[in-house]
Amino acid sequence: MSSNLFQDLPRNFPTEVFTSLLESPAVRIERIVSHGHSSPRDFWYDQQQAEWVVVLKGAARIEFADRMLEMRPGDFVAIPAHTRHRVDWTTPDEPTIWLAVHSS
Amino acid sequence: MSSNLFQDLPRNFPTEVFTSLLESPAVRIERIVSHGHSSPRDFWYDQQQAEWVVVLKGAARIEFADRMLEMRPGDFVAIPAHTRHRVDWTTPDEPTIWLAVHSS
Repeated sequence: MSSNLFQDLPRNFPTEVFTSLLESPAVRIERIVSHGHSSPRDFWYDQQQAEWVVVLKGAARIEFADRMLEMRPGDFVAIPAHTRHRVDWTTPDEPTIWLAVHSS
Repeated sequence: MSSNLFQDLPRNFPTEVFTSLLESPAVRIERIVSHGHSSPRDFWYDQQQAEWVVVLKGAARIEFADRMLEMRPGDFVAIPAHTRHRVDWTTPDEPTIWLAVHSS
């Protein structure tokens, strides 16, 4: 992919598309593109690393154990390690572009 | 500031405004807002940490020792530690919003 987050978007993709932008011992930065995708109903992420994630385009909803979080462009959230969450919904109207920063 | 990158922008600010969004031993994430600002002519950043930076709104130009890099929304660049650079220009037409990830 080019060095632009908003270019080279996938088309007709059956699942979310993850693209690594930077990997170092300290941090991993990735772009995620969703388009109407969500996590399976009983699937929960339970990650060993902390994640900071922002929605840059589109719209999404993340489910945590105790709340739903609506996310619009610019909205960000820090998800500590082992905080269970899932993608409850992303808009079918356009691609949702996320930027995620994983770190220990 | 709220948990939205595009809200709560500063107004009439004499220098670039840096807002820390996440700080951990591994990583520091910050929003930078510029509005026509640039680095002083002979000033160069020479950072101990690696920086990954993306322009989300506006327009900017970064100078490296050997090149100029024009940046439009979505453009990102990885700047290794101790890679001298400066902000040569940001557009006076609107705020330029950057997201920077610093890590060792």
